[in-house]
Amino acid sequence: MKVGVLGTGTVGTAIGTRLIELGHEVRIGSREAGNEKAVTWAESLGDRASSSDFADAASFGQVVFNCTAGEGSVNAVTSAKDGLAGKLLIDVANVLDFSNGPPPVIPATDRDSLAEQIQRAVPEAHVVKSLNTVNNDVMVDPVRVQGDHVIFLSGDDQEAKRQALELLGEFGWPDDRVIDLGDITTARGPEMYVGLWVRLMGALDTTQFNIGLFRD
Amino acid sequence: MKVGVLGTGTVGTAIGTRLIELGHEVRIGSREAGNEKAVTWAESLGDRASSSDFADAASFGQVVFNCTAGEGSVNAVTSAKDGLAGKLLIDVANVLDFSNGPPPVIPATDRDSLAEQIQRAVPEAHVVKSLNTVNNDVMVDPVRVQGDHVIFLSGDDQEAKRQALELLGEFGWPDDRVIDLGDITTARGPEMYVGLWVRLMGALDTTQFNIGLFRD
Repeated sequence: MKVGVLGTGTVGTAIGTRLIELGHEVRIGSREAGNEKAVTWAESLGDRASSSDFADAASFGQVVFNCTAGEGSVNAVTSAKDGLAGKLLIDVANVLDFSNGPPPVIPATDRDSLAEQIQRAVPEAHVVKSLNTVNNDVMVDPVRVQGDHVIFLSGDDQEAKRQALELLGEFGWPDDRVIDLGDITTARGPEMYVGLWVRLMGALDTTQFNIGLFRD
Repeated sequence: MKVGVLGTGTVGTAIGTRLIELGHEVRIGSREAGNEKAVTWAESLGDRASSSDFADAASFGQVVFNCTAGEGSVNAVTSAKDGLAGKLLIDVANVLDFSNGPPPVIPATDRDSLAEQIQRAVPEAHVVKSLNTVNNDVMVDPVRVQGDHVIFLSGDDQEAKRQALELLGEFGWPDDRVIDLGDITTARGPEMYVGLWVRLMGALDTTQFNIGLFRD
């Protein structure tokens, strides 16, 4: 499958590298084509990896991941609007405010979410929020953390969610560990949870953790 | 032990009843003494249960629980300020905005927390945030949900946290399932998590669940 990855930071390259390992073709996009880090990344991974700008990476992909920093995500997807129409857009981003240094403040609230902002910016894309509740290396390799820990899924389009579930399965997430929360507004929940994630990271002194779900 | 419980709603009576079962003396407090629900509750539980107003319930307790609705918590503890000085005040409340009907909107943010507002309102009390991440019946009887699910602890005073841990142990929470997140500002994490809890309640169609922690 051809996959576009918006964002060339730690998350974008982690997801891009994993998709290459899984046999897919990946075009990673940054604000401007020729981004040195993206070019180097693509060269190191062979013929199935390439780099370009956001619009071209989106047009290339049959499926697209948003891995840009949350603060820049709406601009990034807006600049790639045409290439995203009709496609699954998996949004894994969080808005992190580092203006007072680390750990970041999490501006997420229950009045709106980044996923909804993205869906409004690219109404013809099928936005599915997922994976934003774990560190990037756990996203693409969940066995790094032992046990039946879970991730979440939010989106308005059932077929897009089914397709996302399949890709998450390739990453190593079994279906029964992906909790479908409902429509795109439910992304507010996992985005707000990051406020707890940051404190857990502090208390546990590691990013290699996740939550599981116990029910009666 | 003598325990004051502020709030005579579902959470206050659940915690009060459990404390009576455990052999403690409980005075449950509402805005005004003589609250019919509180009087009936106390009469049904015998000599060790009584009811009064917030100030008197706080003065009565060697330890005090804040179980008022989050919107009214700062007023409640302020009216009980004198009786709270030097004592452990376990805050289990959440602010829930039902102005658009259920499910509630969760106004929690990463800029402040209810627990911090309470600590600022009663600076001589030792506020410890805990239990706000589970339904009231799970708070006092964690075996209702099978498995090693967890709760959190936030507070500035180590001795108060140790005392809270002991009480939580009486409720049925083993020490290793109570995660100490750090100082009172870390309460922002568990308060924001309620935004995810509400969506999980919707997706799972039950309040009888909780999260566990998996780490590498």
